[in-house]
This record gives sequence, C-alpha cells and structure tokens, in this order.
Amino acid sequence: MPPSPIRKLVPFAEAAKARGTRVFHLNIGQPDIETPRSIMDAVASAAHTMPVLEYSHSAGFESYRKKLAGYYAKNDIEVNHNQIIITTGGSEAILFAVMSCMDAGDEIIIPEPFYANYNGFATESDVRVVPIARTSIHSGFALPPMDAFEEAITPRTRAIMICNPNNPTGYLYSKEELETLRDICLKYDLFLFADEAYREFCYDGRKHYSALSLEGMENHAILLDTISKRYSACGGRIGALVTKNQEVLDTAMKFAQARLSPPTFAQILAEAATELPEDYFNGVHAQYSNRRDALVSRLQAMPGVICPNPGGAFYAMAQLPVDDTEKFCQWLLEDFSHNGATVMMAPAAGFYATAGRGRDEVRLAYVLDEADIHAAMDCLEAALKVYPGRLS
Amino acid sequence: MPPSPIRKLVPFAEAAKARGTRVFHLNIGQPDIETPRSIMDAVASAAHTMPVLEYSHSAGFESYRKKLAGYYAKNDIEVNHNQIIITTGGSEAILFAVMSCMDAGDEIIIPEPFYANYNGFATESDVRVVPIARTSIHSGFALPPMDAFEEAITPRTRAIMICNPNNPTGYLYSKEELETLRDICLKYDLFLFADEAYREFCYDGRKHYSALSLEGMENHAILLDTISKRYSACGGRIGALVTKNQEVLDTAMKFAQARLSPPTFAQILAEAATELPEDYFNGVHAQYSNRRDALVSRLQAMPGVICPNPGGAFYAMAQLPVDDTEKFCQWLLEDFSHNGATVMMAPAAGFYATAGRGRDEVRLAYVLDEADIHAAMDCLEAALKVYPGRLS
Repeated sequence: MPPSPIRKLVPFAEAAKARGTRVFHLNIGQPDIETPRSIMDAVASAAHTMPVLEYSHSAGFESYRKKLAGYYAKNDIEVNHNQIIITTGGSEAILFAVMSCMDAGDEIIIPEPFYANYNGFATESDVRVVPIARTSIHSGFALPPMDAFEEAITPRTRAIMICNPNNPTGYLYSKEELETLRDICLKYDLFLFADEAYREFCYDGRKHYSALSLEGMENHAILLDTISKRYSACGGRIGALVTKNQEVLDTAMKFAQARLSPPTFAQILAEAATELPEDYFNGVHAQYSNRRDALVSRLQAMPGVICPNPGGAFYAMAQLPVDDTEKFCQWLLEDFSHNGATVMMAPAAGFYATAGRGRDEVRLAYVLDEADIHAAMDCLEAALKVYPGRLS
Repeated sequence: MPPSPIRKLVPFAEAAKARGTRVFHLNIGQPDIETPRSIMDAVASAAHTMPVLEYSHSAGFESYRKKLAGYYAKNDIEVNHNQIIITTGGSEAILFAVMSCMDAGDEIIIPEPFYANYNGFATESDVRVVPIARTSIHSGFALPPMDAFEEAITPRTRAIMICNPNNPTGYLYSKEELETLRDICLKYDLFLFADEAYREFCYDGRKHYSALSLEGMENHAILLDTISKRYSACGGRIGALVTKNQEVLDTAMKFAQARLSPPTFAQILAEAATELPEDYFNGVHAQYSNRRDALVSRLQAMPGVICPNPGGAFYAMAQLPVDDTEKFCQWLLEDFSHNGATVMMAPAAGFYATAGRGRDEVRLAYVLDEADIHAAMDCLEAALKVYPGRLS
C-alpha cells in the first residue's frame, strides 16, 4: 500500500510552524470558503431534536437521493434516485466502483498525472493501474489521441478512469474528448469511471459535460461524486456512486450494506445543500476564478516556470526550473523563508505512475484568498532565485 | 459478494406494514435507547459556530484520541492516542484490520455463528473465512477447546476473529477462553481480531475482558471498536482500530489516508461522549438486562424452543421447532398476524459459514421496550402453534 505523497511533507511543515514561520498551504485541496451557514444550521437543528442517531438506509436517505436526482437533472444528468448510492465521501464511491466492476488482477487505464489516492484504492482491490503517459504539461494535459489508449488496452483492461475537471491538472475535458473516450469504451466494452468532484468549478464560461450524459454509455458510465468541494464540506464525508447499470448498482449495494450506512449528520447537510439558492455558486465561482488568474499569471511571469492555464477545479500544475521538486518542496519548509513565511506545495511525482515523470512539476491548490496567493507567490519567486538546486 | 442476510426480508416487512400489520423489529441491532442529549447538543453547538467543515486528521481528531485513550484506561486497556485510528464505523475498522494484516488468499478463523458482514469484508479483501463449526446452541455457544482451532490452522492462516460479547449469540467470553485464544495465537503467530462493540453490555455482574489487555499479545491483538451501540449512535459512523503493533498501525494509516478522514460531526459527538457521567451506563444497562430477562424467559417457556441465556450484547439465539427459519420468518411477515401485529427476526443460516447449519435457529435483538418484547413474544408463541412447517 503506497503512502499518501501529499502528506509526506507534513512533519516538515509542522517544524516550520514551530519555528514561527508562516506556511501558505497550497498543497492540499481543503477549500477555505465558508460552508454555507444554512446547511450547517440544518445539521444543528436536526441534532437538537433527533432522539436516536440511527443507521440510515444503506443507499442513503431516500429523501436526499430524490433531491440529488433533481440536482443532477439541473446539470443535464438524467437519473432517478434508485440509480444513486450515497457513499462515505467520494473515496468510498471510487472504492465501490473498483470493487463492483473489477476482479483482482484486472487493469484500469488512467491518463497521468492523476489523483494519487487512485493508487491506494487500486491496491486495496488488487487491481493494476495502467497509466497513459502520452500527456504533457506543454499541451496543458489534454487527452492524448485514441491510439494512446488502444496501445494500453489488454485482455485484462476493464475500465478507464478520468477526473473531470482534473485533479491535479485542472484540465477540463471537452465534449469531443469525452466522445473519444465513449468510442473507446464501447469498442472495447470498458467502464468509464468519471470522478466529477469539481463539476461546478469551470472557468472562462466553459461548460462541464458529464460522462453520465454521453449517449450510448448507459451501461458503461459510472459517475463518482462528492459534496466535499462543491459546498466546502470535506469533513462531512458524503459522496455518491451514480450509474444506470443495474448490475453494477446491485453489486455496489452489497458493499454498501456490508458497511451499513453513510454518516447521518452529513446526509442532513447534503440534503439541505440541494436547496441552496441557484446563485450560490456564482459567488464561489467568481472567487476561485480570480484566484486562478492571480496564481497562474504570477507563475507564468516567473523565469523558467511553465504553467498552463487550467480550465477547471482549483488546481494548477507548474513545471519549475529545479533539480527535483520533492527536494525543493522540503527545502522550502526546512531551509527557506521570505518575510517570515514559506509555501507548501505538492511535488508532482506522486501523481504519476511512470517512474521519473513529474519530478520537475508541482501541484498548487488555490484555496487561499488572493492576498495570500500573492504572498505565497512572493515566497516562491524569491525561493527560486536562491534555491541551490536551481537549474540554469 | 454475498448479500446481507438480515436485509433479505425487508421487502416482506414493508408489504406487511403496507397492509396495516404492525411489525416488531427484533431482526436488527439498531438500539431504540435515546442518544444522550448532551452529545447531540455538542454537535448542534459545533455546527452553529464552525466556519468550514474541514477534513480532520486521517487518524481522527487528536483531542478525541487522547480522551478515548482515557476511556480505554478506565476499561483496563492501556493504550496511548497514537495507537488509536478513528474509523468510519466499526465496519471500516474491520476492513482496515483485514487489509493491513492479510494478503489475498490468506485465511481467517472465526467460530460460527458470526456477524454476517465479516463475510463481506473478507470477500472485499479476497481473504478466506474458515469457520469453527464445533460450537452449539446446546452449550450456549461457548468457545470449543483449543484442538478445534488447531485442526483449522493451515500455512495460510493469519488471524482468528472473535466478537466479544458476541453478535449474534450474546455469548460473553471468559478470561480463560481468551487466554486459550492467546495461547493459540502466540503458538502459531496469528493475529487476534477482537470486535468489542458490545463491551458495556455484560449482565449478571460479569466482567468484560479485552483482547488488548491480554499479556504477551502486544503484537498480536487488534481491537475493533465502535460507538454505535455504546451510545445509541449507529448513524454517526465512528469506530476505532486500536493496537500496540506499530507495523499494523503504519499500514492501517495508509488506508486511512487514502480515504482522507472519518466524519467530522460524529467525531465531535464521540468526543463529547467520553465526558458523559460515569453512571450513564447504569440506566442503559438495567434496561437491557430487564429486556433480556423478559425475552429469554418467554422463549424458554415455549414448547420445543431452546434459548441459552446470553451473558452480553443485546442478542439471543433461539432454536425453533420449524422446518426452516428462513421460510418461517418470511411466513411471519407474509401470512401471519396476531392482534394486528407480527414479528421480524433474523434467520440464523446467514450467520453460519458451514452449509446447512443454523436453519432451525433465529437471532433476536432485544432493542424494544419490555411491553413490546412481550407483545412480540405473544406473536411468536401464537405463530409457532399454527405455522404449517412446525415440527412435531
């Protein structure tokens, strides 16, 4: 079982803080945006009056699933509440999908870089991750052409997994790219697992297309979702597995029943969130969009740094002119400060399955306000000038 | 993946209710006892003031783990907070233990009957359950002698699993039985997984002994715990994996990090529960003890019924004079009522791994008040007189 690459640097960050250095956390996708007050109050109100904190239905409250189907309908995803299984975070949705659709020794194709915990869930299920390495920061991590996937397909391939908009790259897949994936999945009878945790976070007026609304994919598309980022509710641990494939639903329900039920309090929160005003996301969206612009323009202005402008999520990938970003990120925490502060980023090697890739890249999560983003970029800019392992 | 045997009858119960028949639920361990008001209010208060519902530490709040170590100390279990990983329910603790200590194809020995979901977790991890079949309702499901275990051990055996007090039998293991298990585990270098969800529910003045306080078992004992039953907080989904084995802790932490964190709200509830007054359990305990006495005495008075008096938990197993308890339980819901009511029980075959065993047994959870228990027993008594598949 691989350790979480994002968490490896934590002891160095703790030591920096103990020395009095302020650490700007760009390393983890924990949003700082306030959780909507009305949905927190819904939990408070329920906790005040509920006599017994009971198990819920293993698939989650029926009332919540019905309202969630309404939320999906507004997002051009037509499903009914029986096609939704509420999970303990998006993490459990991923685990249920892998365990329900794949056997030990089967293979799942994932374009790299990808969310490092996919490796963890694959290991838990004894499934092999086959990365698609024909991706590059120079093309902004666009999906490679169909033959890159076809080269990777073997008799053991069961699924392709994408995260859209992408963690860690921020890349937003176009409708055409999704249709390419559909063609591959139908041709080779593969599942398409689509982690759409960042559905609401698309910029520059671009639209999100869901794998679940692709025609002809009714039996192949599995949507993996979570409220964590959408409502700044990471600690709730509420996600969902959504599919029209009845066999997958039946199998996933057995896993759901074995673990009894998803958390009750956060289901109340999630149900309340389906009733937030339509304009709730506008404010959140504007904030993230401004932060992205600040972060990316600062990074692009640094000599030797490459940073494609991400179309979605709240991550950016940057190539840095350093020997090794793991060493650089540790050095930032151990040996550097600027105006009493330093910056913590996620070295990108942990997001690649191909050995050696990503060693000159970092992932930055723009989960700080604009002033802090500028202060963090001041640190990074100063650090790149003095880092002993800087490449010319 | 096997379906949950307890949930198979649910559609029949729903149909009975739709016809207007009252259903006494003795089939599932969902306590009816009110969740302590003070711990629900702690959640309400936190929800009112918390700005962002953040991920917690993957091992759970440090403050909660420290207080939980204090709770264990009061129960003669000496651990520190770094030896505790907070999990999403006891279910996740079981899954982490199996995944951290065992490889695909390994074997785990479990005396039967056992909690049916153990099969689910074993299937998820590709681990084989080897039942100990030398148990019997006639000896009250006491642990068989050491040679019954030795016969079952193979080179692939990695662990023995017990639930103490037991679900489904209510059996409370004696100190001597636990010492026997210790001797086996040390002799064959096996882990002892101890599900102690019902620690507080021991009757007749008997004491609970934890696997984690067995001398010499520091590297072998893994305690699997939950607050679900202890505080009537099943919907919280908070449990714990507790062990002094550092290697197991390190591996389990990787699984914990992959799923990010346990639910925040219920951790607040669980932390508040460590501060309940010492006498909280006295009232709960008296209620369950009276219910057990009512249930068991009624069952023992029915001709042809065998029901050993359980020493703990809130379950009793009964042998019934019927052809097949699956058929009988379904018939109770489909074709029978008495005073406008019927009773739902869990057919015991699902708790056995050995084919054919348990078909004349049921598990009854005494999670109703005494008046309802008597009304449910009136139904059962009347039903056994008229059931067409009654054995002479």
